[in-house]
Amino acid sequence: MTSRAETRRASNEILIGKKPLMTYVTATLVQLANEPTVLVKARGRSITRAVDVAQIIVKRMGNIGYKIGRVKIDSQLIQSEDGKERNVSTIEIEISR
Amino acid sequence: MTSRAETRRASNEILIGKKPLMTYVTATLVQLANEPTVLVKARGRSITRAVDVAQIIVKRMGNIGYKIGRVKIDSQLIQSEDGKERNVSTIEIEISR
Repeated sequence: MTSRAETRRASNEILIGKKPLMTYVTATLVQLANEPTVLVKARGRSITRAVDVAQIIVKRMGNIGYKIGRVKIDSQLIQSEDGKERNVSTIEIEISR
Repeated sequence: MTSRAETRRASNEILIGKKPLMTYVTATLVQLANEPTVLVKARGRSITRAVDVAQIIVKRMGNIGYKIGRVKIDSQLIQSEDGKERNVSTIEIEISR
């Protein structure tokens, strides 16, 4: 139970992956109903998709008044499948209502 | 001559395209020798590459002391080839020395 809790993300984080874009838009909007601030996170090629998600929320749902806060970029050292280590870029976009 | 001046980018901007990543890293470093602050800009799928360029400069050349400033995300309405308008996400990363 402890380990499960440890592997869970904080409830105000949305990690962008390979699902359809609107899946993440919806997930973020649901979180924003519960939390004042949501962090949309992505790494590697999903970074562009994270920006798309943030823009769809802020521009198309603009009348509800969501806004983009701090945008943080960084990189992580990850172990690739061939056992080598490589750097992958990351992004963290703060969206608040 | 006026129109040429108008179409030129500001000298402290680097627009990320499809060339090899290190081309943009070098171009940004050259600009940083002349300007205290450089804006690395990209749109659409090049956004991830812009983050990569910024991370390479800050992490690998970290001893020179470049740092990431404001990261701004936005979107632009562009005319696609089929004549339709669509939104494309953009990023602007401030790097300073």
